[in-house]
Amino acid sequence: MQAEIITIGDEILIGQIVDSNSAWMATELNKIGINVKQITSVSDNENHILEAFKEAESRADIILITGGLGPTKDDITKKTMAKYFGSKEMVIDEPTLEVVKKIFAKYKAPLLDVNIDQARVPDNCEVLLNEQGTAPCMLFRKGAKIFISMPGVPYEMMNLMSTKVIPLIKKEYELPAIYHQTILTAGVGESFLAEEIKDIEEALPPYIKLAYLPKLGSVRLRLSSTSHADENIKKEINGFINQIIDKIPKYWVAKEDIPIEKVILNLMMENNLTLSVAESCTGGSISQAITQHAGCSAVFAGGGIVYSYELKTKLLGVNPKTLADFGAVSEETIKEMVKGALNNFSTDYAIAVSGIAGPDGGTEDKPVGTVWIAVANKDKTVTKKFSFGNKRTQNIERSVMAAFNLLFRLLKENVV
Amino acid sequence: MQAEIITIGDEILIGQIVDSNSAWMATELNKIGINVKQITSVSDNENHILEAFKEAESRADIILITGGLGPTKDDITKKTMAKYFGSKEMVIDEPTLEVVKKIFAKYKAPLLDVNIDQARVPDNCEVLLNEQGTAPCMLFRKGAKIFISMPGVPYEMMNLMSTKVIPLIKKEYELPAIYHQTILTAGVGESFLAEEIKDIEEALPPYIKLAYLPKLGSVRLRLSSTSHADENIKKEINGFINQIIDKIPKYWVAKEDIPIEKVILNLMMENNLTLSVAESCTGGSISQAITQHAGCSAVFAGGGIVYSYELKTKLLGVNPKTLADFGAVSEETIKEMVKGALNNFSTDYAIAVSGIAGPDGGTEDKPVGTVWIAVANKDKTVTKKFSFGNKRTQNIERSVMAAFNLLFRLLKENVV
Repeated sequence: MQAEIITIGDEILIGQIVDSNSAWMATELNKIGINVKQITSVSDNENHILEAFKEAESRADIILITGGLGPTKDDITKKTMAKYFGSKEMVIDEPTLEVVKKIFAKYKAPLLDVNIDQARVPDNCEVLLNEQGTAPCMLFRKGAKIFISMPGVPYEMMNLMSTKVIPLIKKEYELPAIYHQTILTAGVGESFLAEEIKDIEEALPPYIKLAYLPKLGSVRLRLSSTSHADENIKKEINGFINQIIDKIPKYWVAKEDIPIEKVILNLMMENNLTLSVAESCTGGSISQAITQHAGCSAVFAGGGIVYSYELKTKLLGVNPKTLADFGAVSEETIKEMVKGALNNFSTDYAIAVSGIAGPDGGTEDKPVGTVWIAVANKDKTVTKKFSFGNKRTQNIERSVMAAFNLLFRLLKENVV
Repeated sequence: MQAEIITIGDEILIGQIVDSNSAWMATELNKIGINVKQITSVSDNENHILEAFKEAESRADIILITGGLGPTKDDITKKTMAKYFGSKEMVIDEPTLEVVKKIFAKYKAPLLDVNIDQARVPDNCEVLLNEQGTAPCMLFRKGAKIFISMPGVPYEMMNLMSTKVIPLIKKEYELPAIYHQTILTAGVGESFLAEEIKDIEEALPPYIKLAYLPKLGSVRLRLSSTSHADENIKKEINGFINQIIDKIPKYWVAKEDIPIEKVILNLMMENNLTLSVAESCTGGSISQAITQHAGCSAVFAGGGIVYSYELKTKLLGVNPKTLADFGAVSEETIKEMVKGALNNFSTDYAIAVSGIAGPDGGTEDKPVGTVWIAVANKDKTVTKKFSFGNKRTQNIERSVMAAFNLLFRLLKENVV
């Protein structure tokens, strides 16, 4: 069962917005065993949209379309669909009109003709009622293939997918099952990993695929079966997963596809542990990564963003003499920083980072990219020096990932 | 001049990563007057990639490709390009091999055969040297059309685009002259802005276009001429820009396309002012936004991430009685927080934010999305309550933008 996603709208093609809808839709389709063959973004241009429909129809069974359903002139998805599917006329869809009226009443806005037009749909489509906006969700059939057009507003699309589109697909199609399992690794490169697990990769049967999904400082390994998802294949894939983690004990973090800071939060939550941070060169990025997760306050107390020498001393109690003698980017300072966080912020664990993110501030001794990281609990302090590159954003991102990896390793020594 | 972007890799099609590369590339192409006709994401499958190449070739002059260039088995872009362009053999590209060796030497990693293979390229391509990674950037020509394949790693792609691809396109093609000028606004919606500047928009000559580029809490207004870019048009567009900002004195932030926190940093740097923060619900996002900018340490001292009550008291001196009587999300607490930051962190200005980001923690009185923000200098404290929605990430992002907007307005009262 193949699906394709088509997004319609100039705003993606001029780079004004990033298409995050498609990744979300792809994830949902994958969960029910539907393979997304292609994602295509096209402009608000009739011929181009028609061409995209035709190409998608030739490859896929299910074509999901977002965007181009607004009330303004440049939104032409609806009339282009009418043309593609040979509709005879546009007719008012009463339930949609009710929603439109309700929305305008709620905001006490005058109901204009263009707003009423939102409720007009091609006579040969089925409407999946959009209860959260004025743009209708339309389904067209061509043989066994279906086209579904949804608004591009993320929450409207997500609600329609969850409550209407996915249930309809599950009801109408017999779905072949897809099964994925992912290993999160940190602190090691893709090619080194590939070398380490070469034997296992070569022994994989043809119906199990291994993919390497690298990010800065972290690689995810994904084993997939695209033919079946019964208990046998799950057991088989799980067997390979265990073989792989046995080969890379120092690098694997989790047997699921979640970010490393979420692994840490879960582990600390289960063990009633608390965390604080002392961030210099990462400037809030560690805290930001943690606090994006709902419920993090059970673990995360907060911490200090200590960009200046003064705040390093004031918030963390770093001795001014240490700063004067060794500089802010030194093992001596990072040790005092992490201990200061542990003590002053009264947490079980702490992370401290101090480095030269760049582009300025490097010296011969300590070039841009030099970063000291420390993690600690009351019994143990681990410090490590890293030499990253010369790009500020990357140095920050790599420092965040390295800090989480060090913390994860220290945690693993202490909890089950 | 038409371009298409093709991204190769299962990770986009299964929704594991959001394709943010394409939006960035589209923006860069647009700047030099190239229209992006389509963005296509295809899987790591030879036939499918070949089909995508053929379709793109039929529509566009320039085809930019990212992804599928890693050292592992599932990366097949290079050999698929060799097939499409009828290459005879793979040959070592010496400059690329040098880069590969340098990278492995730097990280003291063993150089494996798969790494050396990274430097092997089809004999009929031109290599645009990728100085930041092991995957080569390859250019193929077919008549007047060019295909350029780049790695999907964002910073490698961005560096290649900026230093090699865009300069090459500018040199080889006659491009239309484009001139853009942008106004950054904050704290006001798109439709309100449109109403305010309606007269000016209607008076624009046909060769000057106005675009509204909205983001959470901020709208950029871009005036463009796509036909010519001489001194006259620059003067004319600048005239309209000044008319617009005169109409929206309370909302415009800058006459250039830079983020609001960069406007603030520039303003504070020019006036030798310092800043600290006290972040609760934004959890580091304000600091992170500031510290992504090189040179911010001249202005930014740091601050406290005060997630827990204890740290609000310890770092900022918030009275425990205030917290007990009014709660962490209250005008009383936010006032003490911002004053605590000003005094304890010894800065000229401070920002404090405390709110309920959600999804939990809301009450009848203070539903999820309730956020108090304060900005202050020694003479004045401004507090404001916001009621955002029920989405955690959006509440954080909106809080950051609102905090910067309040700080910007306070700064403007005090400096020129």
